[in-house]
Amino acid sequence: MSLPARIVQHRFSVLTPGRGFTEISREVARCVAEAGMQAGTAHVYTHHTSCSLIITENAAPEVRHDLERYIARLVPDGDPAYRHDDEGPDDMPAHIRAVLTSASATVPIVAGALALGTWQGIYLWEHRTHGHRRQLTITLTGA
Amino acid sequence: MSLPARIVQHRFSVLTPGRGFTEISREVARCVAEAGMQAGTAHVYTHHTSCSLIITENAAPEVRHDLERYIARLVPDGDPAYRHDDEGPDDMPAHIRAVLTSASATVPIVAGALALGTWQGIYLWEHRTHGHRRQLTITLTGA
Amino acid sequence: MSLPARIVQHRFSVLTPGRGFTEISREVARCVAEAGMQAGTAHVYTHHTSCSLIITENAAPEVRHDLERYIARLVPDGDPAYRHDDEGPDDMPAHIRAVLTSASATVPIVAGALALGTWQGIYLWEHRTHGHRRQLTITLTGA
Repeated sequence: MSLPARIVQHRFSVLTPGRGFTEISREVARCVAEAGMQAGTAHVYTHHTSCSLIITENAAPEVRHDLERYIARLVPDGDPAYRHDDEGPDDMPAHIRAVLTSASATVPIVAGALALGTWQGIYLWEHRTHGHRRQLTITLTGA
Repeated sequence: MSLPARIVQHRFSVLTPGRGFTEISREVARCVAEAGMQAGTAHVYTHHTSCSLIITENAAPEVRHDLERYIARLVPDGDPAYRHDDEGPDDMPAHIRAVLTSASATVPIVAGALALGTWQGIYLWEHRTHGHRRQLTITLTGA
Repeated sequence: MSLPARIVQHRFSVLTPGRGFTEISREVARCVAEAGMQAGTAHVYTHHTSCSLIITENAAPEVRHDLERYIARLVPDGDPAYRHDDEGPDDMPAHIRAVLTSASATVPIVAGALALGTWQGIYLWEHRTHGHRRQLTITLTGA
């Protein structure tokens, strides 16, 4: 299979309730379905440095609970080693968490659909204690 | 250089022997060579949440040994803090390891070949104790 | 919006001063501006396994200071657990840091420009104690 590629792009935003996970798989899958592409990639990007995008297990909610608990221990709030705390004890930890994960996720488009595995979901991970409106861009490159 | 892009996609699977690394550089390089693209990107994706894809040193096997030993210490099996242990003490650590690394790797295609650095290899990192058959999708976008 | 895609590719190098961060946002933005693409993605890649690319806060220099201090504690130099120390106590830590971050960063192109968020910058993170000349490839896929 070898087909000429085109670009489709969407922007949207997510209002997070504070630290934790918001699944966005459905929004990305809908963009792919509407674009009518058979094969390619879906790139999702967050324009912030204190939240991130991850792909993880979408069934048991304990997985997300444990992810948050694990990273809170790995990157402690209010660590006296941090110089940067302009916005509070969760400011620098949010930047570190974002760097240890990623500002983007790229998932293939296969047979006209977003090809997440059966147990995979795309999540926006808010790393600040308080909620924020987060801007995202989805870029589809496909044929 | 500015050339019209097209998409070529392949799926394949890897049978892992349990925790550790399986190099897939050759498989990806072969897809690139067969596609006849001069410039672009090769996106490799795993459809699972308990293994991941990394790019690391391809010469000294001690590097992979040390990576596995390091992450086993960073993300301990059977930590009593985990709620999610449906599939055993390596279940939740596998999800955490996958989130701290990545479900995908993207490498440029330059001058008709996969442009890994001299010392770079693409590895599937199995995070479960037992072996699994892992599904992968390679999406080439190039000209 | 749905437009035919093309590929534009550039290679460049950065001479790092040793451990720390070199911002490359401007170089990437310039490639995007010159390519004349309205929408797509910019993929930046480093061909090495002991430095990495991250997207983080571009304003307060304390953020980068704290990132370096945090990761130096998380991945200690000269840990007796490492077998691989051919090039010194910072050899294996550099590979681990690279795996915990990434060899690439992908940022959307929106409205003809590199769409970094207001507070986002793309940084090459040198993980070796001494400086190195680092090779990078920028691949733009867009319309």
